[in-house]
Amino acid sequence: MIKVSVMYPYAAGARFDHAYYREKHMPMVKQRLGAACLYYTVDKGITGGVPGTAPVYVAKCDFVCTSVEAFLAARGPHAQEIRDDIANYTDIQPVLQISEVVVERSEV
Amino acid sequence: MIKVSVMYPYAAGARFDHAYYREKHMPMVKQRLGAACLYYTVDKGITGGVPGTAPVYVAKCDFVCTSVEAFLAARGPHAQEIRDDIANYTDIQPVLQISEVVVERSEV
Repeated sequence: MIKVSVMYPYAAGARFDHAYYREKHMPMVKQRLGAACLYYTVDKGITGGVPGTAPVYVAKCDFVCTSVEAFLAARGPHAQEIRDDIANYTDIQPVLQISEVVVERSEV
Repeated sequence: MIKVSVMYPYAAGARFDHAYYREKHMPMVKQRLGAACLYYTVDKGITGGVPGTAPVYVAKCDFVCTSVEAFLAARGPHAQEIRDDIANYTDIQPVLQISEVVVERSEV
């Protein structure tokens, strides 16, 4: 199981429409990824590690996927559509990372 | 619900003991945070957004907590112990962020 993290660096004055991101963009991408994506998470940055400081990322999400190959194959035909939708909610260039899921969710 | 993300920036040649992190450090922190932390996740960086590139973070974790106040209050008495344990698995200085959980886990 792998995780594709898409992270939007905080910048003073930058535009980010959290409602559009949550309600339109993320469900669209999930639909396009199909069975390659098991589920996703969405976060809105509040602060850095010290209360009152700016967050590193104004928003970020994780797509939990079955494998890197499945993710890339599923995204391929829709990559342009996904990229083109970004301008509808932000002018920030996202940073991407692919990780191995070591602990999906710890025991409670 | 909030998420405390602890991210270890990738650096060529830096040390990171993923086994110690997963088996010792993370369970210890969870135990110290008690009921303030609902669960945590652990990731190991594979690549950046482009296959073959270095990941932004060699490792990262999220502590999903009930509130910022509960997290800070629970960590307070153990902050020094938690910080002191970092040298046991890495020489990387982590970056922290606190986020609002917008979508904890999307519908499948």
